[in-house]
Amino acid sequence: MKKILIVGGVAGGASTAARMRRMDESAEIIMFERGEYISFANCGLPYYIGGAIEERSALLVQTPEGMKERFNIDVRVQNEVLSIDREKKTISVNDIANNRKYDESYDVLVLSPGSTPLKPPIPGIDSPNIFTLWNIPDVDRIKSYVDHTKPQKAVVIGGGFIGLEMAENLHDRGMEVSVVEMADQVMAPVDFEMAQIVHRHMKQKKVNLYLGDGVQSFEYHNGLTKVKLQSGKIVEADIVMLSIGVRPQSELAKAAGLEINGRGGIVVSDTLVTSDPSIYAIGDAVEVVDFIGGQKTMIPLAGPANKQGRICADNIAGKNVSYKGTQGTSVAKVFDLTVSSTGVNEKSLKRDGKVYGKDYYTTIIHPNSHAGYYPGAIPMTLKLIFGMDGKVLGAQNVGYDGVEKRIDVIATAIRFGGTVYDLTELELAYAPPYSSAKDPVNMAGFVGENILKGITKPFQWHEFENIDSDVIILDVRTPLEREMGYIENSINIPVDDLRERMVELDKSKKIVVYCAVGIRGYAAQRILEQNGFDKVYNLMGGYTTYSVVFC
Amino acid sequence: MKKILIVGGVAGGASTAARMRRMDESAEIIMFERGEYISFANCGLPYYIGGAIEERSALLVQTPEGMKERFNIDVRVQNEVLSIDREKKTISVNDIANNRKYDESYDVLVLSPGSTPLKPPIPGIDSPNIFTLWNIPDVDRIKSYVDHTKPQKAVVIGGGFIGLEMAENLHDRGMEVSVVEMADQVMAPVDFEMAQIVHRHMKQKKVNLYLGDGVQSFEYHNGLTKVKLQSGKIVEADIVMLSIGVRPQSELAKAAGLEINGRGGIVVSDTLVTSDPSIYAIGDAVEVVDFIGGQKTMIPLAGPANKQGRICADNIAGKNVSYKGTQGTSVAKVFDLTVSSTGVNEKSLKRDGKVYGKDYYTTIIHPNSHAGYYPGAIPMTLKLIFGMDGKVLGAQNVGYDGVEKRIDVIATAIRFGGTVYDLTELELAYAPPYSSAKDPVNMAGFVGENILKGITKPFQWHEFENIDSDVIILDVRTPLEREMGYIENSINIPVDDLRERMVELDKSKKIVVYCAVGIRGYAAQRILEQNGFDKVYNLMGGYTTYSVVFC
Ligand SMILES: Cc1cc2nc3c(=O)[nH]c(=O)nc-3n(C[C@H](O)[C@H](O)[C@H](O)COP(=O)(O)OP(=O)(O)OC[C@H]3O[C@@H](n4cnc5c(N)ncnc54)[C@H](O)[C@@H]3O)c2cc1C
Ligand SMILES: Cc1cc2nc3c(=O)[nH]c(=O)nc-3n(C[C@H](O)[C@H](O)[C@H](O)COP(=O)(O)OP(=O)(O)OC[C@H]3O[C@@H](n4cnc5c(N)ncnc54)[C@H](O)[C@@H]3O)c2cc1C
Ligand SMILES: CC(C)(COP(=O)(O)OP(=O)(O)OC[C@H]1O[C@@H](n2cnc3c(N)ncnc32)[C@H](O)[C@@H]1OP(=O)(O)O)[C@@H](O)C(=O)NCCC(=O)NCCS
Ligand SMILES: CC(C)(COP(=O)(O)OP(=O)(O)OC[C@H]1O[C@@H](n2cnc3c(N)ncnc32)[C@H](O)[C@@H]1OP(=O)(O)O)[C@@H](O)C(=O)NCCC(=O)NCCS
Repeated sequence: MKKILIVGGVAGGASTAARMRRMDESAEIIMFERGEYISFANCGLPYYIGGAIEERSALLVQTPEGMKERFNIDVRVQNEVLSIDREKKTISVNDIANNRKYDESYDVLVLSPGSTPLKPPIPGIDSPNIFTLWNIPDVDRIKSYVDHTKPQKAVVIGGGFIGLEMAENLHDRGMEVSVVEMADQVMAPVDFEMAQIVHRHMKQKKVNLYLGDGVQSFEYHNGLTKVKLQSGKIVEADIVMLSIGVRPQSELAKAAGLEINGRGGIVVSDTLVTSDPSIYAIGDAVEVVDFIGGQKTMIPLAGPANKQGRICADNIAGKNVSYKGTQGTSVAKVFDLTVSSTGVNEKSLKRDGKVYGKDYYTTIIHPNSHAGYYPGAIPMTLKLIFGMDGKVLGAQNVGYDGVEKRIDVIATAIRFGGTVYDLTELELAYAPPYSSAKDPVNMAGFVGENILKGITKPFQWHEFENIDSDVIILDVRTPLEREMGYIENSINIPVDDLRERMVELDKSKKIVVYCAVGIRGYAAQRILEQNGFDKVYNLMGGYTTYSVVFC
Repeated sequence: MKKILIVGGVAGGASTAARMRRMDESAEIIMFERGEYISFANCGLPYYIGGAIEERSALLVQTPEGMKERFNIDVRVQNEVLSIDREKKTISVNDIANNRKYDESYDVLVLSPGSTPLKPPIPGIDSPNIFTLWNIPDVDRIKSYVDHTKPQKAVVIGGGFIGLEMAENLHDRGMEVSVVEMADQVMAPVDFEMAQIVHRHMKQKKVNLYLGDGVQSFEYHNGLTKVKLQSGKIVEADIVMLSIGVRPQSELAKAAGLEINGRGGIVVSDTLVTSDPSIYAIGDAVEVVDFIGGQKTMIPLAGPANKQGRICADNIAGKNVSYKGTQGTSVAKVFDLTVSSTGVNEKSLKRDGKVYGKDYYTTIIHPNSHAGYYPGAIPMTLKLIFGMDGKVLGAQNVGYDGVEKRIDVIATAIRFGGTVYDLTELELAYAPPYSSAKDPVNMAGFVGENILKGITKPFQWHEFENIDSDVIILDVRTPLEREMGYIENSINIPVDDLRERMVELDKSKKIVVYCAVGIRGYAAQRILEQNGFDKVYNLMGGYTTYSVVFC
């Protein structure tokens, strides 16, 4: 009879335990959890504070009793694992409730200790109205503080997905919310022009955004915290949410001499074994392979944690299953917007020294969520990133409806090593309430294909930053559309007049064509190019993307 | 300068014309359309009758003038192509408005004539209140009839997706609607147990369903048609919609001696060339390769027609692009339900002589649309069909939210030749409002993998049809759930009591375990199996699927 100990009783740990039992009815399985709760819905916590999730009990997906009855797991909550003796194959445990230390032996040990919110040593960070959100006691504390002190003003530090979910939920509770973010954008997984859509939406929701600014200090007095920013600005808060990132809880592993990477991540093999063959590790705490680039990285998400738990159990049960890497597919609801992405973003490619137009290309399109003639169609903003061989490297999508559907499709294509050519061929479900005969994913594929085959020359918004004054910027929209705003120094010839009026244009010059989203710009560019204009570029995303960045 | 003639001005034809112009600014392109309108939204027609689409103009995606201005296409509406002279490379055309016949020469001819609704010679079929729906004049006729005569009772003949969309839209107009369908189920692309969910939903909406019954005759008198069924039943109708299928409009091709298949489909190569190298054909009228099985078939859908148009234009422009086949991904809104599918269904596998458990397996699961603890989660019914090697052959999904998203993901996996093992690994976007950490697609993959690896033995609802009286049927739900209904002759031991109470069961007997959806049944089955019970099966889809079929 195998004796399996699991450290951590939530996403990775509980999933391992459940699958383990299904694979091996006779094993002895003990799951240790420092906190009072197991199997809770980390991801649901913000919505309990906001009220969308009304019942606290809904957050508890499983209980120790349930795990005992269903899976015959010996669940020990309020039992913190203090150390591992790898020689003796034992762990030492602190039974917190009974204030008792004891040892437990193992054949196999599984670590799923998760991560923990960063709390840097900023002056005043321990003020009583500054909170982090990670588990049930956290959510109880925050909810009780909100319910009892009825804060009016909230400041969220950090514009990641948890920060923004908190911003929305505190806003739903009637607070005036400010978000402070060190980078020039929220939602790090998406690129700047995509984040700008989020910024605009949040401003519409009357959230104050402090971008490119960090916290210098917190000054707490009598229920109010003055958040002093590095810019000198001061923002007042009745409640502060700290959400600036997480670090792996790998102290236990480290103390036991297991291999740890520079960021504190536990190093594991593709079968999720640590440097000690009797010890597995999974979840937020482990280093994973980036599915796209193959390099090592850390991606703390629930989907990977759950799947790793299942794989880990299978391997302990004698199967030989490998975890092939994480591609970072994610989605977040930010007020009415859905923000979703998969694979690499352009920022990270640039950081790695890759050059746009040499190593990779991007497209931005604004297709409707479903057929335009059926009520409720709303445009999304879909960005696709792909290599010179067409291989899809990543995608980002921001909008209201059908957003994460397209990311899921592209994430699936990425999993199979798919190219933009593959995207053009995908046969996706179409009826007017759901999509268009050419789905947005097909459309992104078409545009990508056109770029790679030289049928269109793309021009990106960031290329305006050092554009030659000699370049002709040609607006091919209608005069009516132009009245609503246009790119400075552009001239206007509507696409449908272009065949007659192209004589007005200088063939020797570089021309950047734009329309509202890129479709007419593309048509215009094709007309010009086949009429002897050989330096014609089409602005990707058109005025829609331009204006969200620059206006 | 190439001269390209296109027959048919809607989905396939107009797409070809637009792409063709973008590829070749100098070609002469003439598009012939028999009707008065081009580029209309066929798929939107039912919703204009029902009122969801309010403006008739919304149905006209492009106009002849628009196609002229944007793409310099010579669009000739009310011009019917009568014949093709392949030797001379000319077509003869009837200019209907001017009652004038003329010839036009071509270098390349493209046929996208579409299909037309079947209208079999049933007595009375030409009664003035019997309609088919295919184009704008049809929709005008129907809408005007509905607006003016205010029918109370509607009968829809045919339970395909267009028939059901019409049923919904006539119901939305306040009519009492009956649907008559020859087969024992509506929505042929899905299997019986899936269609049963649709039947139940339609009955809840007070639609009368006549299944397994055909029309013998129509008797029209004074605005009222008596629809006489083969069973002898008579259904009265103020309006009848005929929606029993379509046939390809390949007369032109046939008369020109082009190769035609047994079902009237124009035979084309993978580059969409007919048996005459100067003539291409696309859309509903052509025979396509079934992407899964490789056999020839006919799949009249807008997505394939549009994509074929683009590929056809590329080939005319000298590229060499092949159309790799159609997998039949589709979706329909049926009242509040979404019904979606991709790939092959079980019916067609059986028709081809394939045997369940020998050639293929299936799963049925009922996962939530998103995390159960976040408001609004609703279960879907997801059926997966896969080969013994794990290759995904098809999927069907019926439910309310996030239904076609999962089909799109599986359709994408199918396109890459994916297996159930691949589905377990897909990294899909997860946050509580959108999905679960293990997405329904992952979950279907898990169950499929468990079947193939022998971790679970599935039992399908249809196996109840000749079940041995000796088999123990074991209900592992709680007594409370059992009160709401159970399978006859089943005994009840809740899963959480099973470890203690399995002594009550006879190890020598075959046991079929069931719970509400299959998850606890699976847990129970694993417990029994590892305790020496070696003939334990888990009912796929649990009591939920059982009851929708049998109750
Ligand atoms: C507010 C919030 C929202 C989120 N939203 C999403 C989302 O929408 N989508 C998404 O994909 N991910 C989301 N996540 C992330 C997701 O919850 C984590 O990626 C996932 O829970 C990681 O699983 P894990 O098993 O590694 O760690 P956890 O689930 O955090 O579990 C680790 C457990 O180990 C315990 N532990 C640690 N050390 C010890 C020890 N020495 N002894 C005993 N017990 C110990 C901890 O107490 C903890 O309970 C969210 C997280 C939070 C906090
Ligand atoms: C009510 C309805 C709802 C639908 N809903 C959906 C849906 O939700 N999803 C989906 O994927 N598909 C749907 N379809 C099917 C989809 O519309 C067709 O698959 C698609 O339009 C086929 O394109 P096509 O170019 O082959 O034919 P069509 O779009 O039908 O165009 C063919 C045109 O050719 C013209 N023509 C034929 N012969 C001649 C001739 N000799 N001379 C001149 N002109 C000629 C016809 O008048 C016709 O206008 C629906 C169809 C209908 C009618
Ligand atoms: C509650 C918890 C312990 C359940 O773990 P689990 O039993 O592995 O997961 P599920 O209840 O989803 O069941 C999945 C299993 O049922 C099987 N299954 C699902 N539907 C089925 C069906 N209809 N028929 C048969 N089997 C089915 C799956 O194959 C899978 O079994 P496998 O892994 O052996 O293949 C774990 O998910 C958990 O702790 N969750 C909460 C914490 C968390 O994830 N937080 C982060 C996100 S908020
Ligand atoms: C209206 C119609 C003629 C348009 O054809 P189209 O111009 O090929 O299609 P779209 O307007 O969707 O534009 C797609 C083109 O724009 C390009 N494009 C789309 N978004 C773009 C963007 N943001 N930037 C640059 N190019 C873009 C695509 O690459 C594609 O061009 P390509 O085929 O040369 O690669 C045709 O779709 C039609 O007749 N539709 C109605 C009939 C019908 O389909 N009925 C059945 C369904 S109801």
